[in-house]
Amino acid sequence: MGDFANFGGTDEENAEIKRLNADVEADSDNFENWEKLIRACESLEGGLNRNSSPQALATLRDSYDRFLLKFPLLFGYWKKYADLEFNISGPESAEMIYERGCASITNSVDLWTEYCSFKMETTHTPHLVREIFERAASHIGLDFLSHPFWDKYLEYETRQEAQDKIFAILNRVIHIPMHQYARYFERFRQLSHTRPLQELVSAGVLARYRAEVETEAAQFGMQKPELEVERDIRAKIDASFYEIFQHTQAETNKRWTYEAEIKRPYFHVTELEHHQLINWRKYLDFEEAEGGYQRTVFLYERCLVTCALYDEIWLRYARWMLAQENKEEEVRNIYLRAATLFVPISRPGVRLQWAYFEEMCGRVDVARDIHAAILMQLPDCVEAIVSWANLQRRQSGLDAAIEVYKAQLDSPTVDIFTKAALVTEWAFLLWKVKGSVDEARTAFSSNLSWYADSRHFWQKWLEFELEQPTNAELETQHAERVKSVFTEMRTKSRLSPGVKQELGQVYLNYLQQRGGKQAMKEFLAVDRELFGYAITSRRIRKTHDTNREYSPQSVSLITKAKQSKDAAGVAGFDEATRIKAERRFYNYYELHTDPDPNAQGPADFD
Amino acid sequence: MGDFANFGGTDEENAEIKRLNADVEADSDNFENWEKLIRACESLEGGLNRNSSPQALATLRDSYDRFLLKFPLLFGYWKKYADLEFNISGPESAEMIYERGCASITNSVDLWTEYCSFKMETTHTPHLVREIFERAASHIGLDFLSHPFWDKYLEYETRQEAQDKIFAILNRVIHIPMHQYARYFERFRQLSHTRPLQELVSAGVLARYRAEVETEAAQFGMQKPELEVERDIRAKIDASFYEIFQHTQAETNKRWTYEAEIKRPYFHVTELEHHQLINWRKYLDFEEAEGGYQRTVFLYERCLVTCALYDEIWLRYARWMLAQENKEEEVRNIYLRAATLFVPISRPGVRLQWAYFEEMCGRVDVARDIHAAILMQLPDCVEAIVSWANLQRRQSGLDAAIEVYKAQLDSPTVDIFTKAALVTEWAFLLWKVKGSVDEARTAFSSNLSWYADSRHFWQKWLEFELEQPTNAELETQHAERVKSVFTEMRTKSRLSPGVKQELGQVYLNYLQQRGGKQAMKEFLAVDRELFGYAITSRRIRKTHDTNREYSPQSVSLITKAKQSKDAAGVAGFDEATRIKAERRFYNYYELHTDPDPNAQGPADFD
Repeated sequence: MGDFANFGGTDEENAEIKRLNADVEADSDNFENWEKLIRACESLEGGLNRNSSPQALATLRDSYDRFLLKFPLLFGYWKKYADLEFNISGPESAEMIYERGCASITNSVDLWTEYCSFKMETTHTPHLVREIFERAASHIGLDFLSHPFWDKYLEYETRQEAQDKIFAILNRVIHIPMHQYARYFERFRQLSHTRPLQELVSAGVLARYRAEVETEAAQFGMQKPELEVERDIRAKIDASFYEIFQHTQAETNKRWTYEAEIKRPYFHVTELEHHQLINWRKYLDFEEAEGGYQRTVFLYERCLVTCALYDEIWLRYARWMLAQENKEEEVRNIYLRAATLFVPISRPGVRLQWAYFEEMCGRVDVARDIHAAILMQLPDCVEAIVSWANLQRRQSGLDAAIEVYKAQLDSPTVDIFTKAALVTEWAFLLWKVKGSVDEARTAFSSNLSWYADSRHFWQKWLEFELEQPTNAELETQHAERVKSVFTEMRTKSRLSPGVKQELGQVYLNYLQQRGGKQAMKEFLAVDRELFGYAITSRRIRKTHDTNREYSPQSVSLITKAKQSKDAAGVAGFDEATRIKAERRFYNYYELHTDPDPNAQGPADFD
Repeated sequence: MGDFANFGGTDEENAEIKRLNADVEADSDNFENWEKLIRACESLEGGLNRNSSPQALATLRDSYDRFLLKFPLLFGYWKKYADLEFNISGPESAEMIYERGCASITNSVDLWTEYCSFKMETTHTPHLVREIFERAASHIGLDFLSHPFWDKYLEYETRQEAQDKIFAILNRVIHIPMHQYARYFERFRQLSHTRPLQELVSAGVLARYRAEVETEAAQFGMQKPELEVERDIRAKIDASFYEIFQHTQAETNKRWTYEAEIKRPYFHVTELEHHQLINWRKYLDFEEAEGGYQRTVFLYERCLVTCALYDEIWLRYARWMLAQENKEEEVRNIYLRAATLFVPISRPGVRLQWAYFEEMCGRVDVARDIHAAILMQLPDCVEAIVSWANLQRRQSGLDAAIEVYKAQLDSPTVDIFTKAALVTEWAFLLWKVKGSVDEARTAFSSNLSWYADSRHFWQKWLEFELEQPTNAELETQHAERVKSVFTEMRTKSRLSPGVKQELGQVYLNYLQQRGGKQAMKEFLAVDRELFGYAITSRRIRKTHDTNREYSPQSVSLITKAKQSKDAAGVAGFDEATRIKAERRFYNYYELHTDPDPNAQGPADFD
């Protein structure tokens, strides 16, 4: 027995639960593992009830809490959890779960409806029940498929025999474009005939209608009896209701095509089909253009239940919200939910965008913390480090920015190729911001021995030298500097031939655009060296006369690379290292591409 | 009759030939048309012979000459042409054709062999025949499949009963790695037993062997009879021959794998399979490393019969040749043949490389002419124009370079987007070479109205402003300049949203790296504008409150683009124009990619 943690079950059960917990911890993204754990907990002691052991109940609750913290959008499990609590310890605990559930997935028609019907069964104080119904209405009342909720609401008021309230509800619903708009209007219209005029329209409108009816009558120089007057007024009101119906019908039809396309309205951990995403994008375009603020927000919230794992939608939502006036807090909330609940840390784009937003709002410390948090999880995220340094530069000046790089460069855990990239950024600061070309150049040359295998390092160094302004007397020195960087790259780096060719082209262009009378000799020599295959023979047959005019060193370098690459990675590099050495660095917004409107199959999350 | 040019045939025949000539002129790359024309000419007057009409013969010769000028590598047709001439006007004319043919395709075993056997049948002056055989040997003797030629040569000498010559020929052949090396060695060895010792080895070697034999004998204190001595010497010689055999065998085997892979040893107008190209590359790598100069040249020449339409091989050949010493004339020849005979003008890379080579050799005028020739055919080839201007700059200075651009910019035939690219190059000269930032900036700003739709124009302008050095007091002005270029681009160009996003990212980076305390406000505004879809709603619902903070102009621009693009091209652009407007410009060497060793299917020519 001591071998097993006590989950309140038999030794076998406890062992099983211990194993399932281990699985879940090992791979918390794995949905199946969670389901197994939940099932196992529920079946403890042959199914839990109010007489089960405290340990068993604790085990159950603990599992549900962890599960729903990880997957808060699974409304079905919130319902199950609430039912369990109801059986175990009564309505108060169940209500707690409903509250937590509705807070976690605020726009689930099913969950809110369940909550409401639970409430109306368990509470006898109408105003408390109506309070829940109204909260639900504000969260899901606009849903295209919200009829189960509205029916439930109407059912309750029918029970209360509150005809006026029923009519008031219907009077709200008939304005909402939804799947069953016609049914509600029919009922509303029937009911309207039995309600007093004062309930049907505002006093003002009523007065106007009465006036109209009387003037019409007056034309014939007669005075109608009150009954006829009311009949005519009701006719006018009826007509006005019909206009509302037609408008709602039109709005419904506009949305119908999009709604019909939604194949997965609920959250799931698996990828969405491309055409589902495409439909959501179009639907959002539509509501943004047509629906106004409230409906658009509502649609985004619905969309983000299905698309919670696609940061594209989160970013879009945040951008749209920021485009509305005085919605700073709402924008913050969007970023917060995206970053803390849904978008994996491995895609830092949303978090960086959030940091920029906070910086814009003057909450610089928050922006810093966001960067720190990213680096906690992704220590080698160059984008985040550079972004952090630039944040520091903007807000606290050059030295603060350099401090960021220093800290990373001194850290023993940071990858060498990450450091190579950071050094180039440091040099950039010295050059462009501090305006000290010499210090920048030193930053490159003095670090050469460390980062000679980094493609990025050489690219930036070449760009740096090429960008230096020159004039007649400086031109020669400038040319020597460019050439020497190229030569260093060629001879001291272990980059693969393809990369050396690519970097070499920068030098070839330089010779074209800036070189002097003799430049083409150098041009063709470099061209041979980068692209000429004769290299091989020159290397292998050192004694052959044709070698004389070449520096065998430079030659053999590219060749060795070429050959060993065919064999096993660039000289001394395993493939993984090579990829790191030759990696390019982008900011998330540089990788933006407009979505392909004809994409097929499941859509990757990133 | 007057209706038809007189090709020497009946009216029908003449009409037909006229038509076929028209087809050929209409599409001179079309091989089938040529074949039809040739067939038609041959069948004139029911088949041509020495009695045919002069017109008919003229027609035939004219067609063959034009055909073989276009496709000089078709050895089969040279042979047919020679046969025809032989029948029509005898051996002298036939010989002329063979000479022209062998000059056009210098390494065709078949054609040379045909020529030789023709010569040995028609000439009775041995030294003239041998002269042809020797010329042939120098051109194709090393061919892996040259045995038909060597057999023919041996056959001739057999006829001449010149045993010594036969032995001499075999003594050459046994050193050549070739398909039938064993057969020749066998015959050589047999024959060697019947030849006098003096013929078998040099006097020196003979003396050494004799000495060895005698010392061996002396050990036993005896003197061998001359016959035994000779037998022993022959044994030694035989052994030495066997070493040659083993060496040739080894060399043959090394090449066997490559040779076995060659599926199409002849020229054809259709594309090669990738794996054929791959095999040639490997084979060339091998000969370059192993074969030494002569064998490598020979293999390149063979390869270029099959791969004549792939400039990759021409460039490689030229590079390799340039890597040999004192081969300037050979390099020039390679470029000349590539440019004038085989590589289509539509791929100017080889020609430009040639120009650089000539410039290097100090033949600047030739380099200029090559550029001029390219532009004659490709008036809008930005690469060639820029290359020309840079050539002028290197050799004649800044003003000469600017003249080149002026001429193009004034030309009414040059495309507007070509001009846009040239203006940026002009600005680059003013900036980097002349060192006048202001003039460069004016070149951009004053041309804005003309080239606002050119992606390249904006990219270069942005790069130009971004590269300007700044310091504390200049920073603000610098920032304004960068921003204004971005704003101009956003508002005045009709580029598609994708391109505006791409150029906008440069500005976003700038705000990250250089922007001040407030930069993120601008950053997020631009970010929204470039990537935010809310744009749409802001545009359509101008009255909606959320519009206020935006410049509807800028917003609507990108949106209009987005929408009209879905409909019909970027605002006002047809697709063809859009592609030109958003085109990128590269130098041929920037497009170099290492060939894919696993490529399948037919290989494109470019």
